[in-house]
Amino acid sequence: MNNKRSIKNAFYAQSGGVTAVINASACGVIETARKHKNKIGKIYAGKNGILGALNEELIDTDLETDKQISLLKQTPGGAFGSARYKLKGFEENQKEYIRLIEVFKAHNIGYFFYNGGGDSMDTALKVSEMGQQMNFPITSIGIPKTVDNDLPITDTCPGFGSVAKYIAVSTQEASLDVLSMAKTSTKVFILEVMGRHAGWIAAASGLIANNIKEPPHIILFPEISFNKKNFLKHVDRSVKNNGYCVIVASEGARYKNGKFLADAGTKDSFGHKQLGGVAPELATMIKNELGYKYHYAIADYLQRSARHLASETDVKQAYAVGKAAVEMALKNENSIMITIDRLSDNPYKWKTGSVDIAKVANNEKMMPRKYISSNGYRITEACKRYMLPLIKGEDYPTYKKGLPEFAKLKNKVISKKLKSKFMV
Amino acid sequence: MNNKRSIKNAFYAQSGGVTAVINASACGVIETARKHKNKIGKIYAGKNGILGALNEELIDTDLETDKQISLLKQTPGGAFGSARYKLKGFEENQKEYIRLIEVFKAHNIGYFFYNGGGDSMDTALKVSEMGQQMNFPITSIGIPKTVDNDLPITDTCPGFGSVAKYIAVSTQEASLDVLSMAKTSTKVFILEVMGRHAGWIAAASGLIANNIKEPPHIILFPEISFNKKNFLKHVDRSVKNNGYCVIVASEGARYKNGKFLADAGTKDSFGHKQLGGVAPELATMIKNELGYKYHYAIADYLQRSARHLASETDVKQAYAVGKAAVEMALKNENSIMITIDRLSDNPYKWKTGSVDIAKVANNEKMMPRKYISSNGYRITEACKRYMLPLIKGEDYPTYKKGLPEFAKLKNKVISKKLKSKFMV
Repeated sequence: MNNKRSIKNAFYAQSGGVTAVINASACGVIETARKHKNKIGKIYAGKNGILGALNEELIDTDLETDKQISLLKQTPGGAFGSARYKLKGFEENQKEYIRLIEVFKAHNIGYFFYNGGGDSMDTALKVSEMGQQMNFPITSIGIPKTVDNDLPITDTCPGFGSVAKYIAVSTQEASLDVLSMAKTSTKVFILEVMGRHAGWIAAASGLIANNIKEPPHIILFPEISFNKKNFLKHVDRSVKNNGYCVIVASEGARYKNGKFLADAGTKDSFGHKQLGGVAPELATMIKNELGYKYHYAIADYLQRSARHLASETDVKQAYAVGKAAVEMALKNENSIMITIDRLSDNPYKWKTGSVDIAKVANNEKMMPRKYISSNGYRITEACKRYMLPLIKGEDYPTYKKGLPEFAKLKNKVISKKLKSKFMV
Repeated sequence: MNNKRSIKNAFYAQSGGVTAVINASACGVIETARKHKNKIGKIYAGKNGILGALNEELIDTDLETDKQISLLKQTPGGAFGSARYKLKGFEENQKEYIRLIEVFKAHNIGYFFYNGGGDSMDTALKVSEMGQQMNFPITSIGIPKTVDNDLPITDTCPGFGSVAKYIAVSTQEASLDVLSMAKTSTKVFILEVMGRHAGWIAAASGLIANNIKEPPHIILFPEISFNKKNFLKHVDRSVKNNGYCVIVASEGARYKNGKFLADAGTKDSFGHKQLGGVAPELATMIKNELGYKYHYAIADYLQRSARHLASETDVKQAYAVGKAAVEMALKNENSIMITIDRLSDNPYKWKTGSVDIAKVANNEKMMPRKYISSNGYRITEACKRYMLPLIKGEDYPTYKKGLPEFAKLKNKVISKKLKSKFMV
């Protein structure tokens, strides 16, 4: 444990794909740390995540006004830059960890707050271990973040509640559109959503249906093997029974043999392989086999950056995990990830907790089978019970002249102290 | 003019592609008509638009509660069903118009409110003319609606302001996402938006940029011929100068020879031609020629049904044109379309007006060249001055348990009076 009670600086970094609320976690970290000047000195943020530490590019967040830091709570994306950069294992590449500790040492950084998913938790753990080895103890705390909701142990991941709300509301709105036009126009609508490995995001669309006549009529989960014949039968039945069919498809939808629908080998007119798109693939099937007029939308980044429709619950939790990370660090906790612990479903109650970070690292949480209906196309009441509280409440950003007011940071990088460079 | 002052019934129908606020116009019509029971009897709505009249499927809106009618103001889609069904010219097919008048006569309908775009205004005009010919005068009033903003004379079309706001905000949010990841991941993001003939919707994304370094870096309008070489040069320059490139592309973007980019002839693995998608087409170009990592989103119906992010100005105007339609009908006006007239830009002031419907019918309004920058990729200050007021203000739906409260109508069709059937 970090027994040395002298004032140390803190380093915060964002990792991996960003969310609508990861900056709310940053806000929680910074606002809380600013209240403890007697224990935490400077609060640095990594420029482009962990690369900022490796390259010794540290943003001085003390230069940002309270107002701008507060605006982070309503600003999507990663305000300091994030990175898809996974540090290798100790055996393969110790020098990255050594470099991190050198940079931390040079800037008297005793607290490492790493805001990311499973990979990042692995990094946070190793940083703490390397600090011990190099006799420069680092208090390393993981702050959960992922729209995919695939971290274990924590009840949910900040970022997920907002994307879930966006997908549920968008599906409901688009379904009303399709329903009203179906008599003479589009009969099948497909919405492609994120979730390469787990179907949590697609599942959220199911929150709007109260019975099997209501959309979405078909949800495609990565957890359930895609069966083309059965799928087309269900599409046809929905159009015949309901007049239309709304399909929400995970980008990770796959055949029994593991092959992604999105990797179907579509080629453009030059013969180049075209990547991705489970929606166009499904649309082509429907057109060729059933002949129905279709439309499709691909939500892509719109879904994970849709701060304008964030879940109030999610924003609160994102802030809370940032705040708790600092508070736990000040209580000499180390090598933990902050969690959201559910106390009850209805009324929904939760608190922040923590877990040994080693239990989280590189450990994905799939949708439980009991959350998916027996035919594999809908969600169950158990799933709704779990998920409805997560989309509860609206936390709108403030607007000026019709546009949201997002934080505008200076993001000033401080002078380097090390002579050596580390090029990533 | 309709001099007979006996109480007549009214018929309201929605036409063409629906919007986030077309039901607000319906609400304006119904709430206003309900206040004039001494002049307007029953208020019928066409089941699936004009088909409801042809098939004698009239929805009795009097059966809906005030609460549900009021909820229409916050409900996207077409609450009574819309239709893509254009009546033919008199010469080609008089019998459709004769049928309409027969149905109107059978149900004592003296007021025809038609809520749609250019084609619908043509129909409204012809209905009025045919009523005269058949000695059953119909007061025929057009209510403007189109996300494409392509109706002439009116300053804007209800439906456009909300899609414009959605596209502007979504582009801003996604741009923050891409910017934060660009160092190690996606460098080019493409958002495909509606607008087959006119670039108004794509233009709205430009409202977020204050200078040429800010996104969107490239907007593709149908009004400007696509030049692949020049486009790729601009993408490359933006990535090199800004670290990333955000592109907003109209689905109607086309080459100099008129060929749509979306019709590029992409084929799936079975050799079937795959329709549409200017975004994947651009993405493929960028991957093959520049090698940058890309992502794309296709907003499709999400954009035109996004009631959760409606512009307050747009909702007010949509309601106002419905209300004005009834008021003008009661003043014995006929064969007019209600317009939005701009009185000043800043502060933005407007009122409803009207125009001879013959001047509107089948007459599309393109983006003026002065609204597009000289290089063809951005919007001008003049465009911003025109468009910013249209996205002003937020009009959020009410929510229950995390989901918007949308109207749930009974939509009960009344008994038929005619023996003959008219099958469309």
